[in-house]
Amino acid sequence: MAKHKIAIIGLGKITQDQHLPVIDKGADFEVAAVVSQRGLSHNGVPSFKTAAELYAAMPEIGIVSVNTPPDVRHAIAREALAAGKHVLLEKPPAATMAEFEDLKAFAKAQGKVLFATWHSQFNPAVDEAKALLATHGVGSVKIEWREDVKKWHPGQDWVFEPGGFGVFDPGINALSIFVKILPFAPFVKSATLTYPENRQTPIAAKLVFGSAVASQPALTADFDWREQGDEKWHMTIETANGRKLRLYKGGAALDVDGKLAVEAPSEEYERIYARFADLLASGQSDVDGAPLRLVADAMLVGRREETEAFVW
Amino acid sequence: MAKHKIAIIGLGKITQDQHLPVIDKGADFEVAAVVSQRGLSHNGVPSFKTAAELYAAMPEIGIVSVNTPPDVRHAIAREALAAGKHVLLEKPPAATMAEFEDLKAFAKAQGKVLFATWHSQFNPAVDEAKALLATHGVGSVKIEWREDVKKWHPGQDWVFEPGGFGVFDPGINALSIFVKILPFAPFVKSATLTYPENRQTPIAAKLVFGSAVASQPALTADFDWREQGDEKWHMTIETANGRKLRLYKGGAALDVDGKLAVEAPSEEYERIYARFADLLASGQSDVDGAPLRLVADAMLVGRREETEAFVW
Repeated sequence: MAKHKIAIIGLGKITQDQHLPVIDKGADFEVAAVVSQRGLSHNGVPSFKTAAELYAAMPEIGIVSVNTPPDVRHAIAREALAAGKHVLLEKPPAATMAEFEDLKAFAKAQGKVLFATWHSQFNPAVDEAKALLATHGVGSVKIEWREDVKKWHPGQDWVFEPGGFGVFDPGINALSIFVKILPFAPFVKSATLTYPENRQTPIAAKLVFGSAVASQPALTADFDWREQGDEKWHMTIETANGRKLRLYKGGAALDVDGKLAVEAPSEEYERIYARFADLLASGQSDVDGAPLRLVADAMLVGRREETEAFVW
Repeated sequence: MAKHKIAIIGLGKITQDQHLPVIDKGADFEVAAVVSQRGLSHNGVPSFKTAAELYAAMPEIGIVSVNTPPDVRHAIAREALAAGKHVLLEKPPAATMAEFEDLKAFAKAQGKVLFATWHSQFNPAVDEAKALLATHGVGSVKIEWREDVKKWHPGQDWVFEPGGFGVFDPGINALSIFVKILPFAPFVKSATLTYPENRQTPIAAKLVFGSAVASQPALTADFDWREQGDEKWHMTIETANGRKLRLYKGGAALDVDGKLAVEAPSEEYERIYARFADLLASGQSDVDGAPLRLVADAMLVGRREETEAFVW
């Protein structure tokens, strides 16, 4: 089968590190053009300053991958859907829930495939944790997602500006795993949000979740950007019948009762594009708003406290 | 036709002021029981301390109206749906968006009617504004929703606690009108949230909205709980072709080009229960999450600033 021609919009770090190399070595897609405000290019394919120029010049490209910053993602995705393109979105899929709901409704109205990706969900260890919780029930989940913001976002002041998500930028990865592995919907019952006195988004957050499950499993999350040294991207899970799971390395590895059960090399983006090919074949969308919704809910009900000023 | 037997859960101020007298004088429903933790009763009908006791004692009641504070609304509504009841919810329909989505999904799974009410939507002047905007297009909407918190919530510290909504408690009424009258979906693009230095929810908020409309109409909201004297619940609207609308008195009155076009006595709850009877007859739910979503979005992307401490 011929490869799908795809255009990549936004040539930032995640595109360079993941989307372009993964597509180039894969069997399903072919990068046929790029859109870069800064005029970057890739392998000599046509590069456009705006998506409108791309759509006018190369109408034969029916699929786009939108990897711009989240504040402009809705406008670009809507323009693409209006032009009749199928659309893949980097995470988070929009700046707000209302924008995301609009994209879902508009994709449906246009009859186009919309795929809101959450890369951390695409790990075999995550699939295995989900299967085990479906079989054995949920006793408790304790999320710890701690990293050094100076390592992962050096000098990027926008992460601390309104809409920049703060520690929920990595935390939403944990939440995307959390909602995937649980056999029920979690709700934010309370949250403590810690803001540096000179910043507009939280540098740390502790969340307590509830659910409609009668046994009320204990569900908590501890997100912190002040971790020194290596990142700690862990979930400590107990099943309802006492099995102990540890999902770690950001979802890439799973221990069961102290023994390594699954560890696979990180191929999150390979799996994302394989899934996108399946969605295009079946004409279905995959639009999971739950991780973004939990972040908005935490901001809605959270207690705010201040901590010392943050400087790079 | 016989009246629907309905039970009222929660006998606080809004139930006493609106639900009970409106149902008692109406033709569609009959208050057959009440649930009151404090043991309050109404017209001698059976009063229960918990909903579980009601469901066990009077299984013939198939409909409940849930008017408790929002933090327990989800649990009570879910219990009612699980017991096979149709459910009406006061606003806001849940404490968080995730809880609301869960109720929507569960009502559907149970095959029961769920009605998330927004009382300010139920005004003839609102219907007329909606019709005019559908015909003439939207040029701009400027919302001013200002009132004295000391008049409307005297001594109620919970409105300033996490999850208490702050000035969004009245503001969500304005947003419920806003999403009803607009012929497109608005998104929060930016917000300024003003917190008293000793409180956990905003006492004032200014919002700027965007949309997917090419002409980008100017859409703003100004919510403030520090208004002195009479409340100002106004929207100043210009249609795309220059007609000037003024929707005021909380949505009860509409001027068009300086002349009174619609003013009706407030019968919001009469219309809510008439609508509920229609939904029960057709077996359909009415679950509009847009007002709550806009509040969560404003909290997600808002810029926080502090102001002087608030004391009653």
